[in-house]
Order: sequence, then C-alpha cells, then structure tokens
Amino acid sequence: MGESEKGPDQRSGGGGRFSLLATDGRARAGLLRTSHGEVPTPVFMPVGTRATVKAVSPRDLEGLGVGIVLANTYHLYLRPGDERIARLGGLHTFMGWDHPILTDSGGFQVFSLAGLRRIDADGVTFRSHIDGSEHRFTPEKAIGIQENLGADIIVCLDECAPSGDYAYNVEALARTHAWAERCLAAKSRDDQALFGIVQGGVFAELRAQSARFLTALGFDGYAIGGLSVGETKEQMHAVLEVVDPLLPADLPRYLMGVGTPEDLVECVARGVDMFDCVLPTRMARNGGVLTRTGRLNIRNARFADDPAPLELGCSCYTCTHFSRAYLRHLTLAKEILGHHLLTLHNLHLMLTIAQEIREAVLARRFQAYRETFWSRFAS
Amino acid sequence: MGESEKGPDQRSGGGGRFSLLATDGRARAGLLRTSHGEVPTPVFMPVGTRATVKAVSPRDLEGLGVGIVLANTYHLYLRPGDERIARLGGLHTFMGWDHPILTDSGGFQVFSLAGLRRIDADGVTFRSHIDGSEHRFTPEKAIGIQENLGADIIVCLDECAPSGDYAYNVEALARTHAWAERCLAAKSRDDQALFGIVQGGVFAELRAQSARFLTALGFDGYAIGGLSVGETKEQMHAVLEVVDPLLPADLPRYLMGVGTPEDLVECVARGVDMFDCVLPTRMARNGGVLTRTGRLNIRNARFADDPAPLELGCSCYTCTHFSRAYLRHLTLAKEILGHHLLTLHNLHLMLTIAQEIREAVLARRFQAYRETFWSRFAS
Repeated sequence: MGESEKGPDQRSGGGGRFSLLATDGRARAGLLRTSHGEVPTPVFMPVGTRATVKAVSPRDLEGLGVGIVLANTYHLYLRPGDERIARLGGLHTFMGWDHPILTDSGGFQVFSLAGLRRIDADGVTFRSHIDGSEHRFTPEKAIGIQENLGADIIVCLDECAPSGDYAYNVEALARTHAWAERCLAAKSRDDQALFGIVQGGVFAELRAQSARFLTALGFDGYAIGGLSVGETKEQMHAVLEVVDPLLPADLPRYLMGVGTPEDLVECVARGVDMFDCVLPTRMARNGGVLTRTGRLNIRNARFADDPAPLELGCSCYTCTHFSRAYLRHLTLAKEILGHHLLTLHNLHLMLTIAQEIREAVLARRFQAYRETFWSRFAS
Repeated sequence: MGESEKGPDQRSGGGGRFSLLATDGRARAGLLRTSHGEVPTPVFMPVGTRATVKAVSPRDLEGLGVGIVLANTYHLYLRPGDERIARLGGLHTFMGWDHPILTDSGGFQVFSLAGLRRIDADGVTFRSHIDGSEHRFTPEKAIGIQENLGADIIVCLDECAPSGDYAYNVEALARTHAWAERCLAAKSRDDQALFGIVQGGVFAELRAQSARFLTALGFDGYAIGGLSVGETKEQMHAVLEVVDPLLPADLPRYLMGVGTPEDLVECVARGVDMFDCVLPTRMARNGGVLTRTGRLNIRNARFADDPAPLELGCSCYTCTHFSRAYLRHLTLAKEILGHHLLTLHNLHLMLTIAQEIREAVLARRFQAYRETFWSRFAS
C-alpha cells in the first residue's frame, strides 16, 4: 500500500489535479485539470450511459457548455466492449468527445441486477442483462476496463448497499475498502485520476470511518456513493455534513447519481463539487421539464395552445425557438425532436445553475444566491 | 373557372414564382421564389410529416443547407389540428422553420387507409388512424386546411389510384380533375402557390390527358403523383417522358414521393425540378445509409471494428466526427444519436447530389455528371 504514502504532488492521476479557488461557508468553487482540459466546479456531468448522452450530439453538448460527461463501465464493457473501444482509440475518440470524461466502476449497475449477481470477498459475478451471459468484476478487472476505456477520471469498484441496513453496510464497507486498496494498486495509467468512493449508508459512524480510511489511502478525489437510493434528503444532507470535514479540502468531491437543481444548491452548500444524474435527460423522454420554479410535464393539456417557451427568460435553443404547444405536440406524437429539445433545456438549466453557484461562491455571495433560488422555487 | 384564364403573371400563388435558369437536354436548373425565400432547383425536400423532420432540428436542417421541407396535411389536421396551428401563428412559427414549406393535400395518406375510407364524387370520408374518429376531406376542405397551415406551396386534393389498374385510373382521374378545378376556385391566400397533381397511373394516354387538363387550368406548378407505388423504374421514367413536354417550361415540376440519389439523377434527366422522399430519413432509423456507391446497413457485423467514416470524402458532421464502429454501436443500442447522425448523413448526400446536379446543368455538363455518377455507383 505504498500508494497511501504519496504526497499531493505524486498522486496517481496526473490528469486529475484540482485547485480550490474560493470557499463561502462550506460551498466551494474550483478548477479540475484533466488530460482533456479543465473543468470549472461546481459541475453537473450529463450521463452518457452507452457512450452517448441520450438524444443529443457532442456538438450540442459543446454548445451547451458541458465540461465533462459520465459514461457507464458496465454498459460499455458488455456492448460494444472495452477492448473494442481501446482498439478504436479509446472512449474519447469512439464517441467523438475530445473533452473530459468520467467513468463509473460498473459496480452500481451490477449490484442493481437483483437475482442476477453473486458477491464474494474477491469480486462479483453477474449475468448480462442483454444476453444472460456470465461475467465477473473484480477490483483489478474494473480498473482494467476503465483503463481500456481511457476516461480522465475513473473510480474504484465499490459495493452500494441498501442505505438503511446497518449490518449489511458494515459488511459491504469492509469489501469496498479492501477493493479500494486493490484498485489503487492495480491502476497503471498516469493520465487518469482515480477517485475512491465513500460508502456507509445513512450511518454517520460508517461514513466517517469510510472517509478516513479512503483519505488515508490517498486518492485523486473522493466520490460519495450510495445516496439518492431511497433515503430522505435530510439523511443525504446529514451524510454530507459528516463527510465534508473529513475529506481533504484540496481535492474534488463528487456526489454520485444526485442532481436536481435543488440538490445542486443544497449539496454545494455541504461541500460537494461534482454531480451527475440521469434525471434531466431521462425525464425529457416523457415530457418532463425542469424549471427554476419547479417541474412541469409538457404533455399536460393546459399547454396545448400555449405559445410561451418552456421557461420565460431561458436562453436555451429550445426556449428561444419553440413554444410549449409545439413541444407538447412533439412529445405526444413521440417525435425524437421533442426528446431532444427537452433534453437541451433541462441540461441548459442544470449547467446554468452550476455556473451561477460557482460565480456566487467566487463572489462570496453564495448564501444570498441560495435564498434567492429558494424564493423563486417556492413561488 | 376563371382561374384558368390567368396569364403567367397573374397566377394564384404570388409566393411561387419560378425562373428557369438553364437547361441541358431535358435537365433543368431554376430558382423557385416563395414567401419565405428562394429555393435553387433541382431540390430535394426532406419530409417533416408531423411538423418535424424526424430526428433533426431546424438548426440542423439549416446547417445542412435544406431549402424547403414538406409537411403532411393529413397528420397535422388530425394532430395537433390545423386550426390550432393557425392560432399559434401558422406552421412556420409552430415548427420554428422560417424557410419555405410545402404541404401535401392529405390525399395520399387518406387513400392509403385501406378499409378505413369511402370515396365519392364530392370527397372522401375516412377514419383517423389515431382514434378511429370519422373525418371528411373535400377539395375545399383540403385547401382550407392547407391555408390554415400556411405553407408556401400547397397542392390539390387528388386520388392516387393503383398505378396499373386502367379502369380505376380512368375513374379516379375524372375525380382528380374535378377536384383540381374546385381547389383552384377555393384557394384564397395570395402568399401561397398552388400546384396541380398529374395522375393517370402508368398509362401514357391518361398522363398526357391529365397534364393537358391541368395545364389548361393554370397552376403555379405541377406535381406528378401516383409514382413510386409499385411500378418499375422504367414505367416511372416512361411517364416522366410523356409528361415533361406537356408541362409549361417556365413552371416547376415536382415528382411526389420519389428520391433516391439515383432517382434524382435520372428524373432530373427527364425534366423534374423537385423531389421529396421519406427514404433518407426513414432508413436512418434502422441503420440504413445512402452512399454514392450504393446502400449499406451499419448494423452489419463487418463494421464492428471499422474506424472509417460512413463514406470516405463526405464532409457531413457525421462522417467528419464518427466511425462506422461507433455508429453501429449506437444503432444496435437503439440510441437516438445513431438515428440522428445517420439522418444527417443521408440528407447531406441528397442535398449535395441535388446541388451538384444543379451546377452541372448550369455549366451544361449534366450528361458527364450523370455518367460519372453511374460509374461510381456501379463500382
């Protein structure tokens, strides 16, 4: 475990250096440096499960100002295969995205395969949801796949346990920690940053234990996993409040799978720098729209003759060119353009809010921003 | 029928004037002037059935250089409704497309509703494919709907008969001609051009009769309908060769529903100026790709590791950014981006070929272009 003795400048991921530029309370503004460019934080990362953010192209993402996207190791391992992607030049080349990418470890998807997976101390055996074929992830395998994919930031294989089950979390955390050590040892590429994943369910003592253990190992950044899986917002916030002071201030913190506009504001307030969530893209498929004042569903009959944009004052392509009436028509007719245009709007809002938060932190007026946000949201 | 006595400068569609700029053999290059801008011809019109060209946005279409799109009266009448579209400012505003639009009459779709429609001398009664509700199109109704939609070019209600059934075509042609007179009389908007539709199946004498009858009525342009519905290419070409010399040289000719790269070359060679076809957009959904050398399906296993673009030398966004291997992956995974990127390529090819043909005609080297086209296509 010589990895744990590396100093800040010899961390494993030369591509993952981070500068904390400002704090305001616990809120942080920073700059993440990766092998494919810099990412201002706080940042929202759109999810590109199968090497595409659903219903938008890389040039759309560039137009939106997306700084980094997430891709899923489990899905890409199964199809088209990480070795194939490596032969084709890696994930950036494969998906035409010459900007930062983060891959998850595949663990979350595998542990979600109820009835199709078997965990042991060494790893997890599972069946493909596509063809039922048997596969196995170990910490070394998860790192190997992610090195084949070649994302700028990769993460450890971890076990995401039901957040309220104490005994299960104790067991799972032991595996997660042992696997984190093995992932660190297995890592071989210098151009990738490796994040550890803090687990421990809703239990403060387990979360603290996890944060301390992983920090001692010395990662390039820390993900906080196992949240947004059924616990309350209060429980999630309590976990963040435990973890925040225990993680190194000079390294990025990534809250996995969380990301509504409200979450961005409240979790940045508790020390988080990075977010990903399928919500903005997934809800777009069925007519779901995020706005600063809450959510709406464009299929609602009250929009049938509504010439207004999705959100007044929004500067996105969708809001500056199309009416609610048209977007309702497209959604009811199941036209792809509806999914595309709602996705653009939802992502634009997430990115805009992350940027506004960043500016507020840099100007040391985050609390005022937070209050204004909630005053509009409640209205 | 005073409309038939209008001279060329008093034609009903102020928005539809046409300049024939050059001819080369029977091939023509022209400029169509509409209320929403000019369209160089020959032109390929992407099909936007339900007020969207499937899987692409208006800005994508602008980026491709699309000059005019087609929308379907039948579909928009049923959903979201032509009166609603009128209230929302018309089809251009509704779909965010401030460039020329052509609407069909809805006839083709209604006559395709086997078992769900009943024709009489006055019009056609049919049931909606969406909810089974009963509706009726008459010539006046078809024009009224198209005036509500507000396209730059509208067409007469016609009856598209099985192309090889002589007796049926005689009967149907009588109705089509009577309806053409009524459409001309019903038309009230000066900013829309009205095209008559030449019918008559594969029968030269009926086609000639139809071309003469409609020309005498005096339309802003002439559509040639009822082709590409089962007859051979030779039969289609034979019909064009009958019709071409009978239509006014100074007005545009639109071959309905036809448009492969090969069709563009061979039908321009027989006097056609305008084309529409769902093929380039529809085939993209299932991995179908048009190229200058023929078609390919990107799902084919031989593309799994292929780093090459869809078509070497193609300058479209898809070919300059993505490999066949990636596009195969997207298509197999049923990702919308695959449909989007193949659509962009297929439309780019159609538009490029139309533009190349135009330049060849203007330079009086169309025959050489045609020979080169076929030498590459056969290779």
